[in-house]
Amino acid sequence: LLSLWSLVCCSAAANVDEPNLSKSFLPNYEPDEGDAVGSLQDTRIHVFTVDYDYVQIPYEVTLWILLASIAKIGFHLYHRLPRLMPESCILIAIGALVGAIIFASHHKSPPVMTTSIYFLYLLPPIVLEEGYFMPTRPFFENFGSILWWSVLGSLLNSFGIGLSLYGVCQIEAFGLTDLDLLQNLLFGSMISAVDPVAALVVFEEASVNEQLYMMIFGESLLNDGITVVLYNIFIAFTQMHRYEEIESIDVFAGFARFFVVGLGGVLFGIVFGFVSALMTRFTHNVSAIEPLLVFMFSYLSYLSAETLYISGILAMTACAVTMKKYVEENVSQNSYTTIKYFMKMLSSVSETLIFVFMGVSTVGKNHEWNWAFICFTLLFCLIWRTLSVFALFYISNKFRTYPFTFKDQLIISYSGLRGASSFSLAFLLPEKLFPRKKLFITATLVVIYFTVFIQGITIGPLVRYLDVKKTNKKESINEEIHVRLMDHLKAGIEDICGHWSHYQLRDKFKKFDNKYLKKFLIREHKPKSSLLSLYKKMEIKLAIEMAESAMNSSKSSTAS
Amino acid sequence: LLSLWSLVCCSAAANVDEPNLSKSFLPNYEPDEGDAVGSLQDTRIHVFTVDYDYVQIPYEVTLWILLASIAKIGFHLYHRLPRLMPESCILIAIGALVGAIIFASHHKSPPVMTTSIYFLYLLPPIVLEEGYFMPTRPFFENFGSILWWSVLGSLLNSFGIGLSLYGVCQIEAFGLTDLDLLQNLLFGSMISAVDPVAALVVFEEASVNEQLYMMIFGESLLNDGITVVLYNIFIAFTQMHRYEEIESIDVFAGFARFFVVGLGGVLFGIVFGFVSALMTRFTHNVSAIEPLLVFMFSYLSYLSAETLYISGILAMTACAVTMKKYVEENVSQNSYTTIKYFMKMLSSVSETLIFVFMGVSTVGKNHEWNWAFICFTLLFCLIWRTLSVFALFYISNKFRTYPFTFKDQLIISYSGLRGASSFSLAFLLPEKLFPRKKLFITATLVVIYFTVFIQGITIGPLVRYLDVKKTNKKESINEEIHVRLMDHLKAGIEDICGHWSHYQLRDKFKKFDNKYLKKFLIREHKPKSSLLSLYKKMEIKLAIEMAESAMNSSKSSTAS
Repeated sequence: LLSLWSLVCCSAAANVDEPNLSKSFLPNYEPDEGDAVGSLQDTRIHVFTVDYDYVQIPYEVTLWILLASIAKIGFHLYHRLPRLMPESCILIAIGALVGAIIFASHHKSPPVMTTSIYFLYLLPPIVLEEGYFMPTRPFFENFGSILWWSVLGSLLNSFGIGLSLYGVCQIEAFGLTDLDLLQNLLFGSMISAVDPVAALVVFEEASVNEQLYMMIFGESLLNDGITVVLYNIFIAFTQMHRYEEIESIDVFAGFARFFVVGLGGVLFGIVFGFVSALMTRFTHNVSAIEPLLVFMFSYLSYLSAETLYISGILAMTACAVTMKKYVEENVSQNSYTTIKYFMKMLSSVSETLIFVFMGVSTVGKNHEWNWAFICFTLLFCLIWRTLSVFALFYISNKFRTYPFTFKDQLIISYSGLRGASSFSLAFLLPEKLFPRKKLFITATLVVIYFTVFIQGITIGPLVRYLDVKKTNKKESINEEIHVRLMDHLKAGIEDICGHWSHYQLRDKFKKFDNKYLKKFLIREHKPKSSLLSLYKKMEIKLAIEMAESAMNSSKSSTAS
Repeated sequence: LLSLWSLVCCSAAANVDEPNLSKSFLPNYEPDEGDAVGSLQDTRIHVFTVDYDYVQIPYEVTLWILLASIAKIGFHLYHRLPRLMPESCILIAIGALVGAIIFASHHKSPPVMTTSIYFLYLLPPIVLEEGYFMPTRPFFENFGSILWWSVLGSLLNSFGIGLSLYGVCQIEAFGLTDLDLLQNLLFGSMISAVDPVAALVVFEEASVNEQLYMMIFGESLLNDGITVVLYNIFIAFTQMHRYEEIESIDVFAGFARFFVVGLGGVLFGIVFGFVSALMTRFTHNVSAIEPLLVFMFSYLSYLSAETLYISGILAMTACAVTMKKYVEENVSQNSYTTIKYFMKMLSSVSETLIFVFMGVSTVGKNHEWNWAFICFTLLFCLIWRTLSVFALFYISNKFRTYPFTFKDQLIISYSGLRGASSFSLAFLLPEKLFPRKKLFITATLVVIYFTVFIQGITIGPLVRYLDVKKTNKKESINEEIHVRLMDHLKAGIEDICGHWSHYQLRDKFKKFDNKYLKKFLIREHKPKSSLLSLYKKMEIKLAIEMAESAMNSSKSSTAS
């Protein structure tokens, strides 16, 4: 395994540094060059010929994916390793190793991870998987708290870190006086983006309770929109500041963008979700392409949103949540399994690649070290995170039936892991406007490494030590019946009291859904209840398990 | 549906023609341009902004795939349409329509289908699916006939068509005297490539018997290697002919390439197949990425082979055949389903896209019409195909236990459908060496359209009219036991007689496989017989069917 490993490593390292990456790329490929025909300059016929340019791009992509997969397999081979540290640490370390090899052999920064690769190709599969498998019920039940915490939390962190750092920059001894307020605020918005990948990986491994999980999930979901908008606004302001005055209309436009980005994204996603659900209604003869529709429509919603600078993450999540219910009723059992497992596979690979690429991109000449700036950044990140968690949850707990305990709040404040999104934003900075971009990159990397390695490794033991309520989900027909009974009951009681809350809302939506949406979107409209679907799902799962266990115990004759 | 259709159509049409396709492509993307940040020239903050360049490539790819999928869904909506004509016809027609829209609105040829897209991205999924689901037993049982027919058939067709066309070119009235012998031979080799896609789609729909299917399958498999080598050799010769003499060593080198291309491809594939099988041995903790290993390793074998100019098709097929057996024992049930259905989905989409793109590329200014050349090309294609089939099968039938009947031979000769591979090769011609490239392209397109539309539509009725023996495969434990008994019996009888044939060979390989390969490649070595695997497969299938039918009849309480 190790020899294969190093083979792939070296091969990848050797390939990556070639500068003509775009030469033979698909759209501007010139067919009359005769690339596949053999070099026209050399007129002798050869028994062996090599033409690497022709296959370079897909070849390297394949090699990187294989490298990441092998790293993943290697990590899980030794069963104690996954208990000691999260996968992300090992993957970043491996990436850094590969990056060092590339750097050592060619003396330039490895060119792998560009921002567009991250935002266009690596992030969407992860977002799709999260949206598709998101437990919708707890999400909407905690919706108020999630909104409150993620929106205000992001804003508090951004401005808090930015302003505090600006204060530090005023001290002349640190040599940071050229960083003005706007640049600091921009850096604050960049560094306060909690990563959807890094944090959730850790939380899933620790299997904390649903309420806690939903907070982090919701934060990473909404957080993105807010930090990206803040980031863009601050960049625009920095630029304006150079050439003209910032007017109050600009500030208002900036605030308006928050709503456009957020609500626009959700709207986009819902529209695409309904369209794709409708499409799957007509696929009964071509069930082979059913998974494709799910993947392509959700990706399209993401891309369309990104084109208009509205939140792709929100669009894709909304699309996945909307389509899931109807698509699952429409598609065949095999398509269902394929969608589910292929989605998991894609997101797992993307995750792996992101960490490896982050490691690779660490090595290079893009760095500027300043003790004061970096240490204070780290410090303020921790302080403001903790402050905002305790302040905001203190308020929101007053309105909750089940308040978040002190332990929960501690875990949330400790789980502010930064990841690839901060990193990508740092790389995206225009160097003309931000002469100290390299310092920002270095500081971001230090924060990422600190949070992923120190906090990531210790959060598992911390959860165990604090004895946080763990999740114990188990699907059963019985539970489903009781939950539905209670839903109807609560809605009824509220109706009688004249009180109007989310129980009523859910009840109204369910009625509307059954009466119109399902008739329109689902193939043969039978009044299929969710009970029946659940029963079927469990039945098939049981059957597969039975058949598998019968095989494994080799007593094939007694089964069936 | 139709409105959506036209929406996607128009959107795709509007997008495709933009010339700066490669501008924002991933590898040479400059992060400090600030693309995702908002245009830096315009300094006001906008509530809405659009940046299409940023997402162009994935957006257009997604749109094309969706267009193709919707075309496919539309085709199967009306249940009589699939009986009247093969899908390929409709898809090409739709493609031509889209191409015409693009051409009409911008007066230039649509730039969609380039050769590298076809060979690097669209062909591999189809080859993988064919290789993976290839019935290995009938393939190896008919191996002699397949080799004989495909190798000699391709050579006969190439040289036959080339030489006859050269004869026609000598007649001055046709205005073709500038086409010399080498150019005609090259065109012959190009046009005689029977397409793996077009022919097999029709055959699968007609569900002919296995022996017949294997002939066409084997032909399309080996054919590729031969025609591509011939094509490359003739291009090299044409070029040499311009600058220097062709020496006898070149001709020998040309022959040697046949063996390098063929055997090298198979060897490559087998090595990659074993490596990927070995990899899946260690994935028990990371079953999410199991399908990925299968896809990536087979793609890597294809790309590696293509880099070295050896047959990627053969490499990928050999890889799929080698890995299948071991991978299926190693991976989990869910991974198995995902691999199977995702492979089918990918290949189905590729197929659809190829036909659509072929339609799109038809429209344009790349054409030169010459009645004589085109009519004679069509005529010679038909004549030489028929001649070679009857001549070669007359000989090979003498050595077969079950000879191919006259009807079978008629069907084989009628199924010589040309497709995207001929077309791509025509587009690949270097214009400097072949001044009449446009004539070649037009002639190739006419042959493709004739064979796909006329032959493709009529082959179904012809098969029904001739009453060719249809396939009636059904898996059963009973049959499996009998086949194995007969295998052992035949091998034993041959051993006693001292006669040595493929029964012996198979027996020897099976023993070697059980003794060494399986121990090395399969996870927990239990002496799992193929009987047990088959039983498990059928059991799970039955269980899923039972659960599904129980749901459909809504008598959920009586099942289980």
